[in-house]
Amino acid sequence: MRQASVEQALASWVPPEAPAELGTAMRYAVLDGGKRLRPLLVLATSEALDGLEPAALRAACAVELIHAYSLVHDDMPCMDNDVLRRGKPTVHVRFGQAQALLAGDALQALAFELLTPDDGSMPPAMAARLCRLLARAAGAHGMAGGQAIDLASVGLSLDQPALEGMHRLKTGALLQASVMMGAATADADAHQASCLADFGASIGLAFQVVDDILDVTADSQTLGKTAGKDAAADKPTFVSLMGLAAAQAYADEVLDRAHAALDRSGLSQTGYLRGLADWVGRRSH
Amino acid sequence: MRQASVEQALASWVPPEAPAELGTAMRYAVLDGGKRLRPLLVLATSEALDGLEPAALRAACAVELIHAYSLVHDDMPCMDNDVLRRGKPTVHVRFGQAQALLAGDALQALAFELLTPDDGSMPPAMAARLCRLLARAAGAHGMAGGQAIDLASVGLSLDQPALEGMHRLKTGALLQASVMMGAATADADAHQASCLADFGASIGLAFQVVDDILDVTADSQTLGKTAGKDAAADKPTFVSLMGLAAAQAYADEVLDRAHAALDRSGLSQTGYLRGLADWVGRRSH
Repeated sequence: MRQASVEQALASWVPPEAPAELGTAMRYAVLDGGKRLRPLLVLATSEALDGLEPAALRAACAVELIHAYSLVHDDMPCMDNDVLRRGKPTVHVRFGQAQALLAGDALQALAFELLTPDDGSMPPAMAARLCRLLARAAGAHGMAGGQAIDLASVGLSLDQPALEGMHRLKTGALLQASVMMGAATADADAHQASCLADFGASIGLAFQVVDDILDVTADSQTLGKTAGKDAAADKPTFVSLMGLAAAQAYADEVLDRAHAALDRSGLSQTGYLRGLADWVGRRSH
Repeated sequence: MRQASVEQALASWVPPEAPAELGTAMRYAVLDGGKRLRPLLVLATSEALDGLEPAALRAACAVELIHAYSLVHDDMPCMDNDVLRRGKPTVHVRFGQAQALLAGDALQALAFELLTPDDGSMPPAMAARLCRLLARAAGAHGMAGGQAIDLASVGLSLDQPALEGMHRLKTGALLQASVMMGAATADADAHQASCLADFGASIGLAFQVVDDILDVTADSQTLGKTAGKDAAADKPTFVSLMGLAAAQAYADEVLDRAHAALDRSGLSQTGYLRGLADWVGRRSH
């Protein structure tokens, strides 16, 4: 039901009428695909804290738009040069590189527009805080910075702290921000916010460790994207660093940390959040 | 002095320490170049309304970051494929396409981070309103949408309303937003805001008409970018549509509209704003 509300909201907010097929490319990039992990983390965290529902839905969609734009740009020939995403041709394959570039750019702008409605549905202080959390997580000290490190790391042998540092920015920052944006739609106290930040950080790390495992154990059809591409691109991964068995044990360890952080938070309605963590740590695609 | 404060603020806010040379690429794209027209429009409008200075400086820099990122992406091979900008090699020529893509993405995120400080220097309602104005102007119904139309228009013969519609989004939206963001740092009344929106729209149109004129009358060295490229790319322009003399007369007419809008606003301290309008309508580079 939460996922359906996200799909419906995205379908209503990503503009079909944007000019010159730009809206079509944006909708292609965002709709009818993806696990919606980040939106579900926003909504679950907001629910656990009894947060403001319309604000949480906007935050959920905003973070997904940032994620979607990053995939569009990441798939482009000058980056990962990938042709398959969520089982479909990537945006630049379907619409051309220029349109893919613009669609990604417009999706990022739309994320911040969603967070700042002028219909009174969100208190301005909450809107400003959500924008700040998202901008920090998306930018040079978050996702974009992590991607820059990733590009610069091809062919290098990173040690574990360096690998974790890269992923903390590249994928971790946005996953952690999802949790913190959920908390920002409610009145989390400092202790709860700190525990949720730890939870989000562990989810982010677990996600990447499992991603690296799946890159070598799953096939492209199951993943909906090209399998084995990290190894083919000579990118450092948790599997290449520690071996498959140790990486699997590490994923379990990080998942335990996420559980422990939730326990410490003292929040009672964390069942759904816990379930999301379990999915991240044990998923098969 | 206003320009110096913008340069200084940009130099302090665009992060040199961003990882893997990303900060270097971002600073290369933003610092030590550009006419800073958009920041000056923000500051001049804010001053005319006795707005909040620290907020105006943040808004001025945020809109310049959006402008700078759009140039970085626009210059890439899949878009305009330009190698010269502000008299220097473009970002992708200097740092590679992947880094240029990421630097642009990170600059857009940084714009929204600048607008949402957590140091109490901006009232949250003002921050949220500034984010909304900037996001709308940058996105699918603003700059990015205009660029999509531009790409789709190569080789087509647009009539004047279609050409103006494209430019209203592609360059006009951000120039108009600069004026409206300046107004949002103050308590403009509805009449003033409406006159300033008209002023911003006229500035935006005048800017583009003059840009088209300069593309055929100036050389690359004066412009700091490749001259004659619109004609070479078979793009519709005001000059190709109406001829050079009529385009020059039209620029004067639009500049008169900008003056009239300022007069109607009833604001007294509009001398600097008027000067900016004159520069836009009569500039030689």
